[in-house]
Amino acid sequence: MKAYTEMSKEELLTLKAELEQKYQDAKALNLALDMSRGKPAAAQLDLSMPMMSILDEKSVLKAENGFDCRNYGVLDGIPEAKQLMAEMMGVKAENVIVYGNSSLNIMYDTVARSVVHGVCGSTPWCKLDKVKFLCPVPGYDRHFAITESFGIEMINIPMSEDGPDMDLVEKYVNNDEAVKGIWCVPMYSNPQGVSYSDETVRRLAALKPAAKDFRLYWDNAYCVHHLYEDKQDVILNILDECAKAGNPDMVYQFASTSKVTFPGSGVAAMSTSEANIADIKKKMTVQTIGHDKINQLRHVKFLKNIDGIKAHMSKQAAVIRPKFEAVLTKLENELAGSGIATWTNPNGGYFVSFETLDGCAKAVVQKCKEAGVVMTGAGATFPYGKDPKDSNIRIAPTLPTPEELSQAADLFVLCVKLVSVEKLLENK
Amino acid sequence: MKAYTEMSKEELLTLKAELEQKYQDAKALNLALDMSRGKPAAAQLDLSMPMMSILDEKSVLKAENGFDCRNYGVLDGIPEAKQLMAEMMGVKAENVIVYGNSSLNIMYDTVARSVVHGVCGSTPWCKLDKVKFLCPVPGYDRHFAITESFGIEMINIPMSEDGPDMDLVEKYVNNDEAVKGIWCVPMYSNPQGVSYSDETVRRLAALKPAAKDFRLYWDNAYCVHHLYEDKQDVILNILDECAKAGNPDMVYQFASTSKVTFPGSGVAAMSTSEANIADIKKKMTVQTIGHDKINQLRHVKFLKNIDGIKAHMSKQAAVIRPKFEAVLTKLENELAGSGIATWTNPNGGYFVSFETLDGCAKAVVQKCKEAGVVMTGAGATFPYGKDPKDSNIRIAPTLPTPEELSQAADLFVLCVKLVSVEKLLENK
Repeated sequence: MKAYTEMSKEELLTLKAELEQKYQDAKALNLALDMSRGKPAAAQLDLSMPMMSILDEKSVLKAENGFDCRNYGVLDGIPEAKQLMAEMMGVKAENVIVYGNSSLNIMYDTVARSVVHGVCGSTPWCKLDKVKFLCPVPGYDRHFAITESFGIEMINIPMSEDGPDMDLVEKYVNNDEAVKGIWCVPMYSNPQGVSYSDETVRRLAALKPAAKDFRLYWDNAYCVHHLYEDKQDVILNILDECAKAGNPDMVYQFASTSKVTFPGSGVAAMSTSEANIADIKKKMTVQTIGHDKINQLRHVKFLKNIDGIKAHMSKQAAVIRPKFEAVLTKLENELAGSGIATWTNPNGGYFVSFETLDGCAKAVVQKCKEAGVVMTGAGATFPYGKDPKDSNIRIAPTLPTPEELSQAADLFVLCVKLVSVEKLLENK
Repeated sequence: MKAYTEMSKEELLTLKAELEQKYQDAKALNLALDMSRGKPAAAQLDLSMPMMSILDEKSVLKAENGFDCRNYGVLDGIPEAKQLMAEMMGVKAENVIVYGNSSLNIMYDTVARSVVHGVCGSTPWCKLDKVKFLCPVPGYDRHFAITESFGIEMINIPMSEDGPDMDLVEKYVNNDEAVKGIWCVPMYSNPQGVSYSDETVRRLAALKPAAKDFRLYWDNAYCVHHLYEDKQDVILNILDECAKAGNPDMVYQFASTSKVTFPGSGVAAMSTSEANIADIKKKMTVQTIGHDKINQLRHVKFLKNIDGIKAHMSKQAAVIRPKFEAVLTKLENELAGSGIATWTNPNGGYFVSFETLDGCAKAVVQKCKEAGVVMTGAGATFPYGKDPKDSNIRIAPTLPTPEELSQAADLFVLCVKLVSVEKLLENK
């Protein structure tokens, strides 16, 4: 393929006419497809349907410590659910609090609690003039929405294949007392699918924060979400690394079964130091009497342990791997060597991160939308919805059926080409 | 019975010796009983076990609008769950947000959101020097814990058989801009079992708050929790009354199925005006993607509608009515005419409110504890745990079995008598 960037004005004009015709043809198909969110497909949800029968009216709904899961009580989760989530996060059960159905909600509440009550006795953030969070970009829009909603200033930190730019992170965290946190998706990051290198994790664990209440917000959402049996990323255990570096209280780790069993009806958890757990439980006991212990029990009976989770996730991978491969193959076949795009090739997670020429992302997403394919909004992967280069698009291939995905990817590639040609022509 | 208050010193001393002997005998039984919390008994939980089989692996888990309940989405509840909770609260479905498993958590989040973000555009309470809540007393300790945790000043409002002292409520709310809320359990109140009179509800709805962001925190926890088929309290509909009085946005109503199906695994909801719902959802969308829709569906299939709820609650009443009656009969037989105690005779709810002579409640609870019967901590029914007269004790008769309850009530009555005699002797 001749690189678009090498083409003459005439070549580009010819190409543009061709692409416009194809785009009109595509529009006529009246597509209604969605590659915008990291939602499992129905075929993935079907894999967890046996869980719906794992408890029934004859079941004895007691936890292993004899507690009746049907009644009030047990603030931090039944013991076997703590053990299950501990195994998932690679930590000890005593470092785990099991919550309700949403790790996002845990993160929101964790920030909210810090704003109102402070962290382990620190000044509540609402009493401070300025609070800042570091945001590796591109990143997860819902993280940024939380910090924005509390008026926390967000600072972009570029991501590489090894994770966030650690020179920059160290500069901010170790010198600015207003910096209270960093949003991290350390494994199969959203949207790149990148996993933090050992050096990155060690440097994060060894930070010397100016603020005593600085924390790593370690959203390990994809810790068991491998796409392949033979190519699986591994990251260092952040609780261990923080402890080794003399920062045992510096990290809150989050995880959930949302993309293991059922999003919205799963189990979410946090793991952190005992000091942090004590601080959190003091406030949590005012907020609720306890979360859904029957659903915790249901998950334990269904998934059993880390081996059960791994076996189940292999089935999930079998459903979504072909979708990732279909999209990646299409991108490779249609755009490799074009000079107008780059993209990531993740070993897990839910997304592919796609880079257009500068200034093209919004226009591509808009063109897709006009032809019936919804992509994540351009800019959504940056704080305040502002992608400084207007070049990043998050591709979420899991929800559509394989047939739909093929159509959606065709249209996406077409829109990338068309918008890129128009952009290149601006400078001719 | 001769009133204790009429006895001579000698009579009291003789009685004291008798009671002390009985107390030593009771201690020797090594009881381990709990009348402290409003927890359903196992026999009540058993009534909802069919719900555990109402969905299974063959079920189609779609909401009536076709939404797949297994996946992400639907912030405010599936339509049929809104309808169910609307019928329970006597409101329209469009006035309902269905949440997770805990109405306490909704209340906490509602106060937290007001503290951090304000109410419908008002100044966030954390930016104000002083925020106050009115607290009808005796009341629910977990309400007071929420307001206390946010540093909100709590003002005691005496309760009568008609509800809170409305002259006092009007004086505070209509004149003090710092008063932002009042905690209300309007039906079968915790702990009295009192239901607000029509006049009380109308006067509450017709308040002219000095603070635009004043709200009634209407915890209708016991709205379907009648003890009798033929004696059922009825209260006016607070949303209707507020609307009629020109205060459509002045109330947040809360309810849940915690004491209908399973505490901790139920469904909780709020009902309020459309303006309030819009304000809440703007913030809520940052906090979570949605609550457990499968559990919402499970509840709808099991309870169906308000008639289903009523039929189910009749079965609950059949389990707990004898317990209430056993306690009340014991109090009547042992303490009527003694001059040392009064108590309520509720038609529903989960509690009996008991008044000792001034200065005796703590000692009674302590004596019960020493003999193996746990009561709600004396003072717990007041803000800051401070009962100014040290006279109120909340009796929660639902959790023990009938046999346990009989033993526990015997011991309680004995402790009341003993402590009262000691108190009366102080002044002889």
